[in-house]
Amino acid sequence: MRPELGVCYYPEHWPETSWETDAREMRELGLDWVRIGEFAWSKIEPRPGHFEWEWLDRAVSVLGEAGLKVVMGTPTATPPRWMLDKHPDMIAFDVNGRPRKFGSRRHYCFSHDGYRGESVRITELLGERYGDNSYVRAWQTDNEYGCHETIVSYSPAAALAFRSWLKEKYQTADALNKAWGNIFWSMEYSDFTQIDLPNLTVTEANPSHVLDFRRFSSDQVVRFNRAQCEVLRRFSEKPLIHNYMGRITEFDHFDVGKDLDIASWDSYPLGFLEDRSDQDDDFKHKYMRQGDPDFQAFHHDLYRAVGKGRWWVMEQQPGPVNWAPFNPAPLPGMVNLWTWEAVAHGAEVVSYFRWRQAPFAQEQMHAGLKRSDNEWADGAQDVRNFVSELSEISDINLQTAPVGLVFDYESAWAWDTQPQGLTFDYFKLVYDVYRGLRRLGLSVDILPPSTTDFGERRLVCIPGLFTWSPELKKAVSKFSGQVLMGPRFGSKTPDFNIPETLPPNVPGFACKVKSVETLRPSVVLPLKDGGGIASWREFIETSEEVTEKTEDGNAVLIVKANIWYLAGWPDDEAMIRLLGEVAKKSDLETFPVEGGQRRREFGPYVLHSDYDTGEIQIIKK
Amino acid sequence: MRPELGVCYYPEHWPETSWETDAREMRELGLDWVRIGEFAWSKIEPRPGHFEWEWLDRAVSVLGEAGLKVVMGTPTATPPRWMLDKHPDMIAFDVNGRPRKFGSRRHYCFSHDGYRGESVRITELLGERYGDNSYVRAWQTDNEYGCHETIVSYSPAAALAFRSWLKEKYQTADALNKAWGNIFWSMEYSDFTQIDLPNLTVTEANPSHVLDFRRFSSDQVVRFNRAQCEVLRRFSEKPLIHNYMGRITEFDHFDVGKDLDIASWDSYPLGFLEDRSDQDDDFKHKYMRQGDPDFQAFHHDLYRAVGKGRWWVMEQQPGPVNWAPFNPAPLPGMVNLWTWEAVAHGAEVVSYFRWRQAPFAQEQMHAGLKRSDNEWADGAQDVRNFVSELSEISDINLQTAPVGLVFDYESAWAWDTQPQGLTFDYFKLVYDVYRGLRRLGLSVDILPPSTTDFGERRLVCIPGLFTWSPELKKAVSKFSGQVLMGPRFGSKTPDFNIPETLPPNVPGFACKVKSVETLRPSVVLPLKDGGGIASWREFIETSEEVTEKTEDGNAVLIVKANIWYLAGWPDDEAMIRLLGEVAKKSDLETFPVEGGQRRREFGPYVLHSDYDTGEIQIIKK
Amino acid sequence: MRPELGVCYYPEHWPETSWETDAREMRELGLDWVRIGEFAWSKIEPRPGHFEWEWLDRAVSVLGEAGLKVVMGTPTATPPRWMLDKHPDMIAFDVNGRPRKFGSRRHYCFSHDGYRGESVRITELLGERYGDNSYVRAWQTDNEYGCHETIVSYSPAAALAFRSWLKEKYQTADALNKAWGNIFWSMEYSDFTQIDLPNLTVTEANPSHVLDFRRFSSDQVVRFNRAQCEVLRRFSEKPLIHNYMGRITEFDHFDVGKDLDIASWDSYPLGFLEDRSDQDDDFKHKYMRQGDPDFQAFHHDLYRAVGKGRWWVMEQQPGPVNWAPFNPAPLPGMVNLWTWEAVAHGAEVVSYFRWRQAPFAQEQMHAGLKRSDNEWADGAQDVRNFVSELSEISDINLQTAPVGLVFDYESAWAWDTQPQGLTFDYFKLVYDVYRGLRRLGLSVDILPPSTTDFGERRLVCIPGLFTWSPELKKAVSKFSGQVLMGPRFGSKTPDFNIPETLPPNVPGFACKVKSVETLRPSVVLPLKDGGGIASWREFIETSEEVTEKTEDGNAVLIVKANIWYLAGWPDDEAMIRLLGEVAKKSDLETFPVEGGQRRREFGPYVLHSDYDTGEIQIIKK
Repeated sequence: MRPELGVCYYPEHWPETSWETDAREMRELGLDWVRIGEFAWSKIEPRPGHFEWEWLDRAVSVLGEAGLKVVMGTPTATPPRWMLDKHPDMIAFDVNGRPRKFGSRRHYCFSHDGYRGESVRITELLGERYGDNSYVRAWQTDNEYGCHETIVSYSPAAALAFRSWLKEKYQTADALNKAWGNIFWSMEYSDFTQIDLPNLTVTEANPSHVLDFRRFSSDQVVRFNRAQCEVLRRFSEKPLIHNYMGRITEFDHFDVGKDLDIASWDSYPLGFLEDRSDQDDDFKHKYMRQGDPDFQAFHHDLYRAVGKGRWWVMEQQPGPVNWAPFNPAPLPGMVNLWTWEAVAHGAEVVSYFRWRQAPFAQEQMHAGLKRSDNEWADGAQDVRNFVSELSEISDINLQTAPVGLVFDYESAWAWDTQPQGLTFDYFKLVYDVYRGLRRLGLSVDILPPSTTDFGERRLVCIPGLFTWSPELKKAVSKFSGQVLMGPRFGSKTPDFNIPETLPPNVPGFACKVKSVETLRPSVVLPLKDGGGIASWREFIETSEEVTEKTEDGNAVLIVKANIWYLAGWPDDEAMIRLLGEVAKKSDLETFPVEGGQRRREFGPYVLHSDYDTGEIQIIKK
Repeated sequence: MRPELGVCYYPEHWPETSWETDAREMRELGLDWVRIGEFAWSKIEPRPGHFEWEWLDRAVSVLGEAGLKVVMGTPTATPPRWMLDKHPDMIAFDVNGRPRKFGSRRHYCFSHDGYRGESVRITELLGERYGDNSYVRAWQTDNEYGCHETIVSYSPAAALAFRSWLKEKYQTADALNKAWGNIFWSMEYSDFTQIDLPNLTVTEANPSHVLDFRRFSSDQVVRFNRAQCEVLRRFSEKPLIHNYMGRITEFDHFDVGKDLDIASWDSYPLGFLEDRSDQDDDFKHKYMRQGDPDFQAFHHDLYRAVGKGRWWVMEQQPGPVNWAPFNPAPLPGMVNLWTWEAVAHGAEVVSYFRWRQAPFAQEQMHAGLKRSDNEWADGAQDVRNFVSELSEISDINLQTAPVGLVFDYESAWAWDTQPQGLTFDYFKLVYDVYRGLRRLGLSVDILPPSTTDFGERRLVCIPGLFTWSPELKKAVSKFSGQVLMGPRFGSKTPDFNIPETLPPNVPGFACKVKSVETLRPSVVLPLKDGGGIASWREFIETSEEVTEKTEDGNAVLIVKANIWYLAGWPDDEAMIRLLGEVAKKSDLETFPVEGGQRRREFGPYVLHSDYDTGEIQIIKK
Repeated sequence: MRPELGVCYYPEHWPETSWETDAREMRELGLDWVRIGEFAWSKIEPRPGHFEWEWLDRAVSVLGEAGLKVVMGTPTATPPRWMLDKHPDMIAFDVNGRPRKFGSRRHYCFSHDGYRGESVRITELLGERYGDNSYVRAWQTDNEYGCHETIVSYSPAAALAFRSWLKEKYQTADALNKAWGNIFWSMEYSDFTQIDLPNLTVTEANPSHVLDFRRFSSDQVVRFNRAQCEVLRRFSEKPLIHNYMGRITEFDHFDVGKDLDIASWDSYPLGFLEDRSDQDDDFKHKYMRQGDPDFQAFHHDLYRAVGKGRWWVMEQQPGPVNWAPFNPAPLPGMVNLWTWEAVAHGAEVVSYFRWRQAPFAQEQMHAGLKRSDNEWADGAQDVRNFVSELSEISDINLQTAPVGLVFDYESAWAWDTQPQGLTFDYFKLVYDVYRGLRRLGLSVDILPPSTTDFGERRLVCIPGLFTWSPELKKAVSKFSGQVLMGPRFGSKTPDFNIPETLPPNVPGFACKVKSVETLRPSVVLPLKDGGGIASWREFIETSEEVTEKTEDGNAVLIVKANIWYLAGWPDDEAMIRLLGEVAKKSDLETFPVEGGQRRREFGPYVLHSDYDTGEIQIIKK
């Protein structure tokens, strides 16, 4: 596979006279792909039922004739103002009961039938018109599902749809009452119409209620996206893509991904460091021009899994952005480094956002490859360098990584619902394990909880999985490599109850979590051999071998045959040491790295990237 | 008096087949009491007017026949979902105008007449059925009034009731305008119907308006509780109890207590340390497995006063809880220590919450005496130890403590309403005095502001009382022991105006607070003899003796005969030193303790508890 | 000019029997002016259309006959409760959609036509009655526009008025769409009725939309104030004044000032330090009893500009206030120091707030010149000292300051709307420059953006001006002194777009800001010659002379002839050094001061004030 480059472009923002030059310069820079259309609904259909296609036809032609492959986006993330007159109740409501009004983007509730109908209608028209167009080589559905916290809506439409969803799942109110344990505080329902959304309750709502609402909310995204996919499949054989965002866990990307051909994500290393990183201020200071050394890689591996092997970076940060609390410029060379990292994790395409900085509206301070005065911006040089460096490299074909790491969106919802300690966060837990593996120089495949076979891998980690899936049970049972589970593994039934025989409930593994405790951020429980346990700790009853204990004598790592159970959340030092032990048992060669240095194997190459300096080295193995 | 133990139990959560074993094991563990029923409304009356009593009859029988004494709770903290169909407007509204919806508990506004009627109805039915039952030996009204900030409601029902309450109090709008000083910003009313609840005003509302609303809100709780008491008295001669929560000051517990026979409180030392302590992070870190060394004792003393001498711990934390920001496990032995401390402060019963950890719903991570897999949890061993240690001890009869400390709920509302400095908090002030006394090894009785006689006590402290009550004036005037008043003592009229002759307004005491200042947390004004004044300082005009000054020359402690006035908020060092001086003048022997060590006299014994190690010693005097 | 003193007085709060003594004591203290009436609407018109003027007539007579000059306030900041019955929809709504209810003050929306009519009506009645009264020597309109964040209202009335305002400005929806760049996210409107207020959008609203709403909101204040002015002009020839508040930037004070004769402001140095200062905790600790050494001076200079040379302090803090998070007492002598500072900046009158501390309602803890028990409060001695010191001084006539500093309210709104970095604040930027100048001992005139001529000044600073005004372009072009511009200067068009040729867009100045970055608070980019750049940094493309660079080699100060461009936000050290360089080039003698020492030239005198000790020295030059 030869990776390609692309760019996001908005012909509707620029005079038509500039399109041809833009297209030519894209090609000259070394770009193959151009994504268009995803915010252009008001330009396509300025009034309900009144269409203006010609400009878009011409844009596709100009771009295509210049040799660019077009990704056409469905414009459903930005319904025009007139849509609100047709469907005044289509907007979402936030957890405080406030409407989320028109005036920016993503102003719709996934549960609104009327708007889903409109979304299908415009998709159908686009499909009809461009399904066969030889320049249109891929489709993007909507844009960044979940951006701006738009998955979970407390609208009247959501309440209605949730009741139907519950009725479908439980059939009777009695069954629901039993599954949720509604007897607890006289919360029983006699009819599905009595069930409200779980916001604004006096104290916390029933976690089973909340978890079902989170599942429902995710399913609404799947349904919305699927409706577009079904339409597009009727008109086009080109691959369908969605561009996900970093660290959005509110819907199940694997579920949405089933209806798509390729996964993509929008990678903003500096914006994400400021906006959605758990790291402390010192870390953010140190990496403010580079980004977190593991955040990109984690998502590359995640979306490779979501895309069943096929994935892109649809939007790559090319310079300072506008939307984070602070927006510094990248270190010279970082755009090149980020591009190489994507490629080393198997990206088919890396597409920069955006071609030219817009001089108006919300994102006017967001850098492009060109400045708003149409001169080249700093990022363009990195692209040129990448193109030149890529030409030295042979085709890239990834192998299966020796290590698997299970990521489960339902677990994120479960632990959101009942963290038990303020600092417990599923993403953070999985990411800590990922970082530990990466600091050992190991390449990782992320696996969905529906995995039934771990293949030829040597080690699979399953941190924090809230409930066993039957698929994973099967995968574990037939796997001969090492499996590291815990903490908080299998600690709930699918209905969010405690399993009768207590977690982790691993067949043949005589180990019970008899109780747990959560710890203030200042507390670290030292381990006998170095490092410690922080935030979450379990008390264990076991007759299996205990290979690691806290200084106060409690079991932390319990092992039987190839099953390892981790009874707490290790800090960085302990994580690397413990993972190192398990890796050793797995006969995995490790390559420990220091500071911001990272290592990634891809095909016959190893990419050494240094987040401290911004430098890379590509070495043939 | 011989203290007894108990437990909270939910027969409706468990298969009936397990009740008998449960009851037997309770007895075997050494428990005498079992509380049931307080969340079971939907199980008793699953549909409006349709009752299922049999299960409860059987539960009472099984428990009673095993030798347990039953506390029956009225289930009014958890109205069933159908109640909302009857009374859609029964819910409370928060200060931001948001409804507080069904889905957890305490979803009612105390001012709603319809719901108060329902509460009387179900209480009447319970009273009729179990009033004479020989196993039912006490009643609990509702559950934890005020938990989840449920006292102050901004509902339409509250607005209506508040207007009636005001009309009753002031008779005419003119009288109200005058009392509140509404002329100030043209805030005058010509009719009671014009008066709104004091939320969502442009800037702060008139403090007299707010204080009356707080009084009203408290009165609504009294009225609600009294209605249940009146019903129960008709059917039963068993004592009436309510289980209060720690550090809830939103309603007057003394007022509610007047209608009850016994006070009880729910003591969660670790949860409260994380959730409602003013202490800093270092302190919370140090005592995360023990709780604040004074918090339990303070509430034991407070509720002994509320119960006019009779009090219980109705819910005692037995292990990690689920609801605090962090939920660590107690130090080994702490459950025993906490139990002993309650007993040493005169508790008649200490009842653990709960028997068995529930595997479902909101509190599934809350420890019980048994685990959810029905094995014994760690706390059970502490109970066994306590039972064994108690058998070595003779009957316990408390004496009046040598020191009295006045606690006044109205003052808490007054200083909430107008703290003048961000950090001024009435509870914290009284608690600081209490801690100072306790660190001098002194036993303390808490006194209500309605006290007319301080009895044989040697020292009475009255910190921060916002206005003199006629009763206290009488008590002070005839008291020959030392009285320590201030800061902020008597600084308002009952209408929340400044008294004409300025505070503290003590007859015959030539001392005026001419002005005050509040200080940033970083500021400490050093005293000449050590320690300092923080947060609140008064400037004094006096011709009485000044025994203590700040380094900048301002009077801090003014004394005449047995009256001491404290013109600021001492820090820990100064508090202990100043209290020591007053204690010396009172001829009180002090027993200063260090760190987490505490000392409590009870009957012929002294309990030495060490919160640093979790150890106790009981020594016969 | 001889400065005079005054006081704020509320005859309606006190028994009529005390008025005469009060008036006499005011005169004896040395006061010339007394402001009354601004909160007395309910006393004047207790029921709609029913008036009680006699008390006010008598109050004016008593005060006037004692020799006091009366400032009469229109009472429109406190509409009586009955007004809400006439105009239930007159209240403002906050950004979260919550009503801002009756119960304190300023409970009206500037856009409500009905209430504006009422405001005109009561003003007309006051004008008629007192327009010719010889004791009434000035008028105050309303009170503290903008206090309690009352400028920006999201009410239905505001939405209606905003649409009209937009239609007036843009004529067609197409013109508006183009100006705002609504094509960006399909945000186009086909009709003005479709445009909503820019709150509660899913993510940030279009900045052009927000900026226009901020302009509109300011215009509504101007219109409201102008309506009162037009009425008063018909009845009275006395000067019209408004009392502005410190650091309120939500409306354009220059615009409001055009309709008035004198500007005044309410100066609360200690309250403002706690309540609205950007300084850190150490600074606030150090100056808690003195106030920020530059905050008062800055506002004095600002309001001298707003008043076109004529200005007062209408309310001067005389002791501890009640409304800041912490309310310490001033250092002895500070009230005198503050008064001298006002006078040294040209105040015609300094009026203390308030005469006597009120014993009731919201501000009962706010000090006056007299205590609530009618004894003198500490501040009175400072007034006596001032009166005595003033008598030693000849008349005061200010000269034009050698340094001008442009302050532009629109820029404050622009950078509020899109700060790009969390810490970017226009007021703070201008204030940093002001402090730097003042620490060089320079006297400063603040200039509005409508200035067309910088006069004989030697140096003009224009930091952070979001867009060039035609007036300023003219002033710069004909100015021979030094002009220091930047950072972020001229970086937007009036429609809030990026200018085609990039900022700063200075004719003949070959310098372009090619991109910018914002920095975390921990980051300082060191300059080669000391100090550094923090928070905001620009990357420059220039062929002009670069006189200052960061250590990483980027241009920070670019100069051509008398134009200096500053490409970042200097920290304190760098600010003083860079301003010193420009001042040197301007042939300005500087007088660097240390710590809390400040220096102000006024007429033939220099005031040396020391905020560390509270001492002043007045030296004849």
